[in-house]
Amino acid sequence: MQHTPEPYSRRVYYYETDNMGIVHHANYIRWMEEARMDFMRKVGYVYGDMEAEGIIMPVTGVSCKYIHSMHFDDVFSITVKMTEFSGVRLSLSYRIFSITDGTLAAEGESSHCFLEAKRRFPVNLKKYCVGFYEKFLELSRNDD
Amino acid sequence: MQHTPEPYSRRVYYYETDNMGIVHHANYIRWMEEARMDFMRKVGYVYGDMEAEGIIMPVTGVSCKYIHSMHFDDVFSITVKMTEFSGVRLSLSYRIFSITDGTLAAEGESSHCFLEAKRRFPVNLKKYCVGFYEKFLELSRNDD
Amino acid sequence: MQHTPEPYSRRVYYYETDNMGIVHHANYIRWMEEARMDFMRKVGYVYGDMEAEGIIMPVTGVSCKYIHSMHFDDVFSITVKMTEFSGVRLSLSYRIFSITDGTLAAEGESSHCFLEAKRRFPVNLKKYCVGFYEKFLELSRNDD
Amino acid sequence: MQHTPEPYSRRVYYYETDNMGIVHHANYIRWMEEARMDFMRKVGYVYGDMEAEGIIMPVTGVSCKYIHSMHFDDVFSITVKMTEFSGVRLSLSYRIFSITDGTLAAEGESSHCFLEAKRRFPVNLKKYCVGFYEKFLELSRNDD
Repeated sequence: MQHTPEPYSRRVYYYETDNMGIVHHANYIRWMEEARMDFMRKVGYVYGDMEAEGIIMPVTGVSCKYIHSMHFDDVFSITVKMTEFSGVRLSLSYRIFSITDGTLAAEGESSHCFLEAKRRFPVNLKKYCVGFYEKFLELSRNDD
Repeated sequence: MQHTPEPYSRRVYYYETDNMGIVHHANYIRWMEEARMDFMRKVGYVYGDMEAEGIIMPVTGVSCKYIHSMHFDDVFSITVKMTEFSGVRLSLSYRIFSITDGTLAAEGESSHCFLEAKRRFPVNLKKYCVGFYEKFLELSRNDD
Repeated sequence: MQHTPEPYSRRVYYYETDNMGIVHHANYIRWMEEARMDFMRKVGYVYGDMEAEGIIMPVTGVSCKYIHSMHFDDVFSITVKMTEFSGVRLSLSYRIFSITDGTLAAEGESSHCFLEAKRRFPVNLKKYCVGFYEKFLELSRNDD
Repeated sequence: MQHTPEPYSRRVYYYETDNMGIVHHANYIRWMEEARMDFMRKVGYVYGDMEAEGIIMPVTGVSCKYIHSMHFDDVFSITVKMTEFSGVRLSLSYRIFSITDGTLAAEGESSHCFLEAKRRFPVNLKKYCVGFYEKFLELSRNDD
């Protein structure tokens, strides 16, 4: 049985802050990507390997609710949960915690499809990337 | 009567592209900010003036649906529409068109509150920033 | 005879500011890229066409001196000058002016080589991209 | 006696790559900032504490030579060395290694001044921030 991987964690960089003295909101979308790549690595499938197999996983939608502002040097951690996987589509949800302040800082979601890299047509991982397909399927069942 | 301002438009920068050869998805969130600031300028209230009056307008939520990939040097335009304004809360929707490809590239939304800049408590623009309040109210009625 | 193209110009975006309330210094390096691409377009050779011919122009060195801080919504303009061109190497210098403050805000330089995109070996534009070679040569002579 | 702190290290994020399939050059300037902040933390003086004391340390100059391209998911490490410190000015040099490729990827430098945060006039740390002054002095002697 697959265990939920450890959360992704790091400090806020100075260049991620803005004129309001807080982290600029667009960076949370980037953090979700960092956490997604870390999640894939920890469950055993590095995203770079998917691209090496000729499949890309672009973002088809993203959302974020900002609950608590974050500041330079704050430590945050992000938990990732798979919310949907069908072979042709993947959805993930994210919870971003400020370790420094002990609060939930933001919640987000991302959705993805899988494309053949060269010609950019949609593919089913079941057919094109069986290793990833089985791993993702196992994770999606786990989260039930 | 207030006319809808001209769309915001520019080219895609090279540094906005990623390893997939397309614009990285987090940049669309930044573009929405560019278009929001441009929108405010065009309707007659520069955001910097709001901050100069001691009020900030942080993002409380953001979402984007990616419909059509964009590439380096593509020209895009963004239309902004006010979808909600109450004095304490503001919501905007965005349509991002690829002029180069003649398609709708993405659709997004952002929501905002208004805070007193120093102590970060929520304020009603009606009380703290009457000029902005009346302008925003006029715009929100216009869009009906 | 080739005329020096019009400077590149735009406003500072909100997301380019940082916790100090000024433009984060790394953005000037990005602005130099924006100005470089604009410069190439204005002299008649779009960088995207070079990549379409299978040649990339990576940065081999960059430097910037920061003279005068810039802020959100400031208007800047950038002049670009070719300082060296040999067919295998290109150097450019940049002067970034704050139109808002009427001052020289920064000065920078970038150097570049030309690589065959797929196998990443250095090429001479004279052999691989004659159109660009002749245009760049003309510009480099002009600046004498 | 002060020991040289451990290098700063992390993986390349996906959003740091560009259309050439390599890390965009402006990110190295950001990485130097990450490494600088990490360096200060490791020698015992957190940059945030300097700002809390009302002093900011803006960048007055930056340069980078790019030697070896880096890619998504590569692991890099950065060593930081103090090259000049006078109380009113600070210079640092950086060596960025690709752990993945076992090569020196880039070398850079940054120079800084110290300003009183509110009125933005130059200060001598000896007078305004004695704790930092003595620590930096110790480090600059160490590196001889």
